[in-house]
Amino acid sequence: MAVSEKISEKTMANAIRALSMDAVQAANSGHPGMPMGMADVATVLFSDFLKFDPKAPKWADRDRFVLSAGHGSMLIYSLLHLTGYERPTLQDIKDFRQLSSPCAGHPENFKLEGVEATTGPLGQGFAMAVGMAIAERHLNAHFGDDLVDHKTWVIAGDGCLMEAINHEAVGLGGHLGLGRLNVLWDDNGITIDGGTELSTSEDIPARYRASGWHVVSCDGHDFDDIRRALKEAEADPRPSLIACKTIIGYGAPTKQGTSATHGAPLGDEEIAGTRDALGWEHEPFVVPDDVRAAWQALGEKGAAAHNAWNARLSSHADKAEFERRMSGALPDDSAMQDYLEELAKDQPKVATRKASEMALGAITAALPEMVGGSADLTGSNNTKTSSTKPLTKDDYSGRYIYYGIREFGMAAAMNGMALHGGIIPYGGTFLVFTDYCRGAMRLSAIQNTRAIYVMTHDSIGLGEDGPTHQPIEHVQSLRAMPNMHVFRPADAIETAECWALAIKRSEGPSTLALTRQGLPPLRHDVSVNLCEKGAYLLKSAENTKRVVLVATGSEVSLAMGIAAELETNGVGADVVSMPCTELFDAQSDDYKSELLGGDDILRVSIEAGTTFGWERYTGLNGLRFGIDSFGASAPINDLFEHFGLTADAITPQIMAKLG
Amino acid sequence: MAVSEKISEKTMANAIRALSMDAVQAANSGHPGMPMGMADVATVLFSDFLKFDPKAPKWADRDRFVLSAGHGSMLIYSLLHLTGYERPTLQDIKDFRQLSSPCAGHPENFKLEGVEATTGPLGQGFAMAVGMAIAERHLNAHFGDDLVDHKTWVIAGDGCLMEAINHEAVGLGGHLGLGRLNVLWDDNGITIDGGTELSTSEDIPARYRASGWHVVSCDGHDFDDIRRALKEAEADPRPSLIACKTIIGYGAPTKQGTSATHGAPLGDEEIAGTRDALGWEHEPFVVPDDVRAAWQALGEKGAAAHNAWNARLSSHADKAEFERRMSGALPDDSAMQDYLEELAKDQPKVATRKASEMALGAITAALPEMVGGSADLTGSNNTKTSSTKPLTKDDYSGRYIYYGIREFGMAAAMNGMALHGGIIPYGGTFLVFTDYCRGAMRLSAIQNTRAIYVMTHDSIGLGEDGPTHQPIEHVQSLRAMPNMHVFRPADAIETAECWALAIKRSEGPSTLALTRQGLPPLRHDVSVNLCEKGAYLLKSAENTKRVVLVATGSEVSLAMGIAAELETNGVGADVVSMPCTELFDAQSDDYKSELLGGDDILRVSIEAGTTFGWERYTGLNGLRFGIDSFGASAPINDLFEHFGLTADAITPQIMAKLG
Repeated sequence: MAVSEKISEKTMANAIRALSMDAVQAANSGHPGMPMGMADVATVLFSDFLKFDPKAPKWADRDRFVLSAGHGSMLIYSLLHLTGYERPTLQDIKDFRQLSSPCAGHPENFKLEGVEATTGPLGQGFAMAVGMAIAERHLNAHFGDDLVDHKTWVIAGDGCLMEAINHEAVGLGGHLGLGRLNVLWDDNGITIDGGTELSTSEDIPARYRASGWHVVSCDGHDFDDIRRALKEAEADPRPSLIACKTIIGYGAPTKQGTSATHGAPLGDEEIAGTRDALGWEHEPFVVPDDVRAAWQALGEKGAAAHNAWNARLSSHADKAEFERRMSGALPDDSAMQDYLEELAKDQPKVATRKASEMALGAITAALPEMVGGSADLTGSNNTKTSSTKPLTKDDYSGRYIYYGIREFGMAAAMNGMALHGGIIPYGGTFLVFTDYCRGAMRLSAIQNTRAIYVMTHDSIGLGEDGPTHQPIEHVQSLRAMPNMHVFRPADAIETAECWALAIKRSEGPSTLALTRQGLPPLRHDVSVNLCEKGAYLLKSAENTKRVVLVATGSEVSLAMGIAAELETNGVGADVVSMPCTELFDAQSDDYKSELLGGDDILRVSIEAGTTFGWERYTGLNGLRFGIDSFGASAPINDLFEHFGLTADAITPQIMAKLG
Repeated sequence: MAVSEKISEKTMANAIRALSMDAVQAANSGHPGMPMGMADVATVLFSDFLKFDPKAPKWADRDRFVLSAGHGSMLIYSLLHLTGYERPTLQDIKDFRQLSSPCAGHPENFKLEGVEATTGPLGQGFAMAVGMAIAERHLNAHFGDDLVDHKTWVIAGDGCLMEAINHEAVGLGGHLGLGRLNVLWDDNGITIDGGTELSTSEDIPARYRASGWHVVSCDGHDFDDIRRALKEAEADPRPSLIACKTIIGYGAPTKQGTSATHGAPLGDEEIAGTRDALGWEHEPFVVPDDVRAAWQALGEKGAAAHNAWNARLSSHADKAEFERRMSGALPDDSAMQDYLEELAKDQPKVATRKASEMALGAITAALPEMVGGSADLTGSNNTKTSSTKPLTKDDYSGRYIYYGIREFGMAAAMNGMALHGGIIPYGGTFLVFTDYCRGAMRLSAIQNTRAIYVMTHDSIGLGEDGPTHQPIEHVQSLRAMPNMHVFRPADAIETAECWALAIKRSEGPSTLALTRQGLPPLRHDVSVNLCEKGAYLLKSAENTKRVVLVATGSEVSLAMGIAAELETNGVGADVVSMPCTELFDAQSDDYKSELLGGDDILRVSIEAGTTFGWERYTGLNGLRFGIDSFGASAPINDLFEHFGLTADAITPQIMAKLG
């Protein structure tokens, strides 16, 4: 024990409680119950178990600590502050939940270095921690114990455990035998609506055991008992759930143990009573020097471990590669250019999902940091390459994860791997099932993680599986999400270009929307990545230009056919391929108007999905071809005909509009 | 046993196998493995357990049968055809997966009466069945055993059980003690990527037992053993999981037991071999008369039970009300008009979530079919009224469900209740967590279910909880979904009007996007439901009209403030409130241009969410005010100022644009 002998653990924990209730009160907003309930557990974790160095928050071999119950954000802010991280400062905490403060309502990894993951949407922190624990074992398999040897710790609440995603995270964690993952469950028996018995009758430990987890319980307010349970968890080779029996809002004389402490300030009177009950006699936001010193001593402990690790790194044969991997920097990208040049020589007619597999073949061979997978659609998503052998419980060195039928768990695990560092994760399912993992895709976008979603079967073009499997609104609804780049390439070369852009994009996630059906080659010159500007002129009008056809993905070849018919009719038509609207939106006004034409030009959009939002490119006077209902079950050609997405159906409408 | 003594159950089951493999082969697309594997189990279910009358598919007291593993659609098409439903005909089955056929790739309830739910997105059929089983117990509590006394049966595959939502469905079903829910698990050990051991190590029975389920196993190819297990499940007071050990693609000589039978035609040679192995000597699509007679005898059994039920109904005191409830017809709606008139007398400044609670007070008092709930945010979603006491395991008569932290499970259960009939379900969570239940909301829209989503905290207006809790893209991405009506009312009167429209909308779901923050009253006249056309003129220009401000929800009062400033500057400004874009889009062109003005009018949209898609109403020359990044954690006024959504920030930009 490194805790100062003068300062009891209870007093240290009470510093968390005081900061938490005072910050929530000052903000007149927030969640005091969880930090007050879990303060004792967190004190033990940070005292004797967690490996961290406040002076080096990004130390690669630190333990990862994820506050999955993100509403209890004052817990982590208190811990980071007390142990000596540069931020948050005391002022930051006083400004809890204000625009100026990095102490946001829920922890945001992009605002505070000590925050490993942005949490708040329940269940996802836990599921991201599974990804972090996978990343640790994978990198350990490649770089060895000297460089990679850490644990992943989670604090989760009843909500995290009740959420759907928990099932997938627990299943994946148990199946992969992630013994270094330890979840501290704040077992307080309270949810927002009241006691947990209102809504659940589950034997939670039994469920975890059923998925190969180790479960241990403790009294979450008995320091020795907490310590015993954590030791047991550390020792067990399985992932562990530590059920910490706690009292929510511990210390609040009239409100503790009730949902009244969950999501509202305690109020001045209750806070005064809490101070009495805890024996905490200090003014709001005052942490006495001796208490602060006890906390900082914990922070200083980590420096020794960190120094030893630095020494090992400096003499390690893999130092440069390890540092490159952890920094996220890419190796030189000649492999992709070689692939493109080879492809251009003899480009086949292939589905873009197949083109994606081909591009991935080159990429995964060149980039060892690529770790792929699929939610049980490997052969359909075309996500596996010869470089990516399975990552299993018995061999963590593999680079392909059979995620099972777990879309949400997969996406969250991808976030966790990306946040851990050293890995660029990609994973596949059908595009329509982005509905199943959208919560995690949004957290990719918020957290700026380089997660790459390989979403195949991207329109009615998938054919007979019918409306439940045919995306209609999905491409547009993902484009509407801030910081998500959606790529919908038109042929094999565009697919490779979009992959290159997705991999280079270190500041956020990408979604590749790919076809099931074969597409003819449209591009031949590969000297410049034309997808980089989001849209480009694929074909120039031969007659006097009167129309610009803007299309994406599988509809670009359709647009080419329509353009040919228009030209036959004496109407000049440009064809613009627009694989990424977000990148196009970021171009100069000159580039945009050059490509889309002026008011005298009829702009026409064609995409086999909702027309919603396409007015941005066509204006109100343009034409928009798409599908504004659900799809149907039939062979592909029947569907495109049924929904009017053929040259025969569209060309006359354009001619009519031109008059 | 009503099975013909001459025709063995195995032969009956083989008729399913033959139809399934032949239909998939003819379509050159589909999933033969599951129907062939589960044919024996389904034969026992339909022979001795399921209560159904093929001549009256909508008989209110029929058992509900949900094929959660919807890819095995040929199983249910075969069963409906063989037992004598009017559709599908043999020709329908020959046209499996063609545009002309109701035998779509996955079962669609809107195409075939015998299909209780549209399935295919894995896990949701099971979760909808939970809702059906709740509906049965609830209606039984109100109408008694004479009218409501049936069971809910599910066939689910490994995918259904591995999906995240399964955890929520199992938890809810166990907690509510839905003993009449029996799930037949196709325990074949195979997923698309290969053996289940690739991705899962779960002890599934143990997990179910942990949530209060009864679990029994059987050999899914031994008729007596199946019968034993089903009897045991029926007898047990808990919901039951029946693990049916089966061989996927049973009968296919070289492919059975492998994922090769899952999702592709068997091929002519394998089909010939299967015919040999099964001893099924008939040509494709030929069902011998004696086999057909044996199946139809089962269908005819149900007529007797149905007749007895009809007799009970005809003399039942509650006949009229029961029939009204099951038909979905509403009682007279004077209650809502009374409420509106009362409200108009003294409309308070309230949040629309509070206004929703007020409207719900009147609605739930007048409409006993309203059954509400919340995913553990009752006090925040304002979904509970004095008319809705809790629905619990001990009292199914209640009308309020504490769903727990289970957004996806809640939405799917709502679909199940709506599909069952007799209930109009509504349920709440935060709008941002539509990301957690979007898959079920889409199935509401596909299935045309009257499910009403009460989605509160609908913008940065929620304040300090920050970006993970602040919807940005959500309103627009729900509007992009076909057949979903999104309502974003601006004050208490609009809220009541939108509620009235949602309840009247029998042909599909509605989402109410409601504020956390208080909004001033804007409307006073309640003689006409102005929300019915989706948008209406709230305030006419006083000076010469040069601007139309289009706004929704909380931004309508902001638009009124901006309009006042513009008028002060001599600029005439209409204010259009647009609570439902989908309804507005359905209006005449005259109405639309009357409201939005011609090319000489500057159109301005204001909505505290993404501007994506607003070009539809403003054109490219208009202005769009919104938020195209993620939100932030701060008090509400700071946020609106930070994101430039104030009259002070917007008015000058409009003036500048006018020149």
